Amino acid sequence: MAAQKGKLYLIPAPLGEGAIHTLPAYVIEILHGLNYFIAERAKTARHFIKDTEPVKAFSELHFSELNKRTEPEELRPMLQPALDGHDMGLLSEAGCPGVADPGARIVQLAHEQDIEVVPLVGPSSILLALMASGMNGQSFAFHGYLPPKRPDLARELKQMEQLSGRHKQTQVFIETPYRNQGFIETALETLRPDTLFGIAADLTLPTQYVATHPVNFWKRNPPPDLHKRPAIFLIYRPFK
Amino acid sequence: MAAQKGKLYLIPAPLGEGAIHTLPAYVIEILHGLNYFIAERAKTARHFIKDTEPVKAFSELHFSELNKRTEPEELRPMLQPALDGHDMGLLSEAGCPGVADPGARIVQLAHEQDIEVVPLVGPSSILLALMASGMNGQSFAFHGYLPPKRPDLARELKQMEQLSGRHKQTQVFIETPYRNQGFIETALETLRPDTLFGIAADLTLPTQYVATHPVNFWKRNPPPDLHKRPAIFLIYRPFK
Repeated sequence: MAAQKGKLYLIPAPLGEGAIHTLPAYVIEILHGLNYFIAERAKTARHFIKDTEPVKAFSELHFSELNKRTEPEELRPMLQPALDGHDMGLLSEAGCPGVADPGARIVQLAHEQDIEVVPLVGPSSILLALMASGMNGQSFAFHGYLPPKRPDLARELKQMEQLSGRHKQTQVFIETPYRNQGFIETALETLRPDTLFGIAADLTLPTQYVATHPVNFWKRNPPPDLHKRPAIFLIYRPFK
Repeated sequence: MAAQKGKLYLIPAPLGEGAIHTLPAYVIEILHGLNYFIAERAKTARHFIKDTEPVKAFSELHFSELNKRTEPEELRPMLQPALDGHDMGLLSEAGCPGVADPGARIVQLAHEQDIEVVPLVGPSSILLALMASGMNGQSFAFHGYLPPKRPDLARELKQMEQLSGRHKQTQVFIETPYRNQGFIETALETLRPDTLFGIAADLTLPTQYVATHPVNFWKRNPPPDLHKRPAIFLIYRPFK
């Protein structure tokens, strides 16, 4: 008889230093019961686990790395501990695994292997930004990163604006933090004056900044310096 | 000099009975410091607050109701306590306020009135379902409810399937719980055999059920009875 399979727990991580209070206690409890982890980066994962004050020695913990460079044939062996009956944890660099990170690949494989997948509650910058935006939360789309080059970016922003207007759908995206300022400039030059533009930066951190205004308001009242601060941007055009 | 304005805290609620452990402790602490609430239904809000074991008497707490039937002119007075310097809490029936509920209207008004909006971490069935689906979490769209009538539903499901294939975008939606079974039947009849179909029901509850499989797998292995169980559905077609 085959041993019962372990579960794959999807364990959210804080969005930055000093934000461990945003994790529910049950997540930490489950985390402390696990010996096998799949993480985007083992170093960050160890750092996070250390912050949760585990009782176990690190020598008992096993880490596999799953990132953009992971080849398809490397995925299957990562789930071997679960097939052998051990519960496992999937961790992202920050926030919820499987959302805006490469974790979904291993979750899909877990379903194929009939391993139970258990998502746990924790911080997601995308969801927090959407809640805080005041934009439509009954219809929204997340697009990840927009193109970095200015003409391409402007074209995509225009497309998102049209999409939002047509479907009353909030458009959500991220930018590499060192590009935030250039991104905001392009957005304010490109979008219509009455389109709503939302910014959510440093979510759950002491420096958290959240605001939604029409583009023409932002032009008169520029946002604070967001250089190198993790940020989510949102567009909404609730007009015919 | 005007008094400093209060903040509007966006307070997540559990997704069902007995799931209060999914809330981080800091959310409960902030909740216990508030006297003014805006809730989809005051009765549910009181029930939830009672479960958090508050020290205060309920007679000190003030509730405004914000739901689908709330008229635009009723919104502004709801924020008066914040303008008078009191922190306020916005609560949904279940999960995160402002997402798949009418709360976004008051958040938008808060931004207009320059009231600080503070989103707090907690359970969202949409996000948990997405994490657990193993589908693309780098591009996804939430559409709320699909049309109830079968021919309209089938047409929309087909559109979502095409959208997913074209943009590698996960499509997420909900159904009224008593319609789940009919919805699943229509979906399995309408979608292509190799399209991935995900089901996430009773999230965070002891009866939680999560699975993603191709449509032809589901046809051979039907899901459990989901009648009247809150569920999220997902479609993904990661093929050219």
